[in-house]
Amino acid sequence: MKKNIRTELGTRPLILVSNDDGYDSPGIYALVIALRRLGDVFVSAPATQQSAVGHAITVQFPLRAREIRRGKYFSGWVVEGTPADSVKLGATTLLPRRPDLVVSGINHGMNTSINIIYSGTVSAATEGATLGIPSMAVSIATHALDADLRAAMYYARKIAAFILAHGLPAGTLLNVNVPAVPRERIKGIAITRQGKSWWDDGFEARTDPNGRTYYWLFGKYVWDTDPLCDDAALRKGMVSVTPLHYCLTDETLFRAMQSWKLE
Amino acid sequence: MKKNIRTELGTRPLILVSNDDGYDSPGIYALVIALRRLGDVFVSAPATQQSAVGHAITVQFPLRAREIRRGKYFSGWVVEGTPADSVKLGATTLLPRRPDLVVSGINHGMNTSINIIYSGTVSAATEGATLGIPSMAVSIATHALDADLRAAMYYARKIAAFILAHGLPAGTLLNVNVPAVPRERIKGIAITRQGKSWWDDGFEARTDPNGRTYYWLFGKYVWDTDPLCDDAALRKGMVSVTPLHYCLTDETLFRAMQSWKLE
Repeated sequence: MKKNIRTELGTRPLILVSNDDGYDSPGIYALVIALRRLGDVFVSAPATQQSAVGHAITVQFPLRAREIRRGKYFSGWVVEGTPADSVKLGATTLLPRRPDLVVSGINHGMNTSINIIYSGTVSAATEGATLGIPSMAVSIATHALDADLRAAMYYARKIAAFILAHGLPAGTLLNVNVPAVPRERIKGIAITRQGKSWWDDGFEARTDPNGRTYYWLFGKYVWDTDPLCDDAALRKGMVSVTPLHYCLTDETLFRAMQSWKLE
Repeated sequence: MKKNIRTELGTRPLILVSNDDGYDSPGIYALVIALRRLGDVFVSAPATQQSAVGHAITVQFPLRAREIRRGKYFSGWVVEGTPADSVKLGATTLLPRRPDLVVSGINHGMNTSINIIYSGTVSAATEGATLGIPSMAVSIATHALDADLRAAMYYARKIAAFILAHGLPAGTLLNVNVPAVPRERIKGIAITRQGKSWWDDGFEARTDPNGRTYYWLFGKYVWDTDPLCDDAALRKGMVSVTPLHYCLTDETLFRAMQSWKLE
């Protein structure tokens, strides 16, 4: 299967690029262009839009993948699966060797605070981290598909270069969110924590032409005002870089529970 | 929509039961039976098998739900969506009021270590926690659909009763895993951390009758030997109870990054 992709790999870093918007989104194309000078870039990305899929993987069915090349720089694989599937299949099987870096994005829409747990973009980078590969996710704080991605491209390349030079601890990833403004208006990089912003949400019941009810999710975003959090950085016009892991134990409650009488 | 379900609710706790195997699985039925003496139990569960969907939610399409009643005790809603959808729609919209407790399970197959991040069962409880509702997930350490669920039922009820009496800190959930042995052989309850067991996995490429390649995920589970972790408790024949949250910031790396020269 690998004979048609570039196999004359030298000592350049190998970079796997994925996303959750699908291989034909403007964001992933911009990311490939942004990273191409840093190494050999291969795409392994979902065939279709996979927003808010969280960390889904496909276990009940096999996966299919097909090779793709778009122009001079964009080549790799389209996977009929989730973002996490794309990274797992790409990194272990499709690419000529294990990648040195996984980068997911550029997502249209910020992935901060609670949004992180629903995010397919972040889940692709998390999957990279589970495989022991330095990984990052990149999102821009607008849903506009015609957004100016140059600032996000600039910071994606800068932070990817830093990771390639210095590495990341095993099992961690960087979650990068970029304000939707031109690069010259960005006020620098902030190292942040995941915020506690949340969705005050509910469902609007509607009736279809056949008289049956259906429910649309809607919500208002309630911003965390902690100045060290990811959302606060974006609101200040800064690029937010948050180190994440997938250790979910609540250590405070773990200690408190030692005195619980559960039996 | 609510007129057909029981609305004469007194002061009994209201319990939302969900899962990821779908509303017609033996595990969710057993869970309803286990919890029914603790309060008024309503199901809000996916219509179909949703294993390994992670924390997916449906944002691109509306949700549909239909009422269901099976026998004397099992009533509620079947949601055409993910486990997280079921809990969000159930807790905010379908149930007569906000539930006092969300319980997800009983899942066939343990949800420990890295499996937690892929788990639809845990994601249903996580969704409850994001809504500020005390929540727990219950899994049994076997995939056998005819497994003896009585021990899991016993411990699910015991721990649910404890939560109803004492509450949980906001934003936390308990992840309960029960060994697949009769209740009398269980060696007690262990308060644990999420383990670092992992899947040494890959894909097996096969060729379909039309000559096209497809890929099956396979893997070998590599056990964490930390005696305080969830997997170790199960291997000792104990019920593992792990407090989880969805704060993903890696605090160690956050501190280290203060000296990084990213700009």
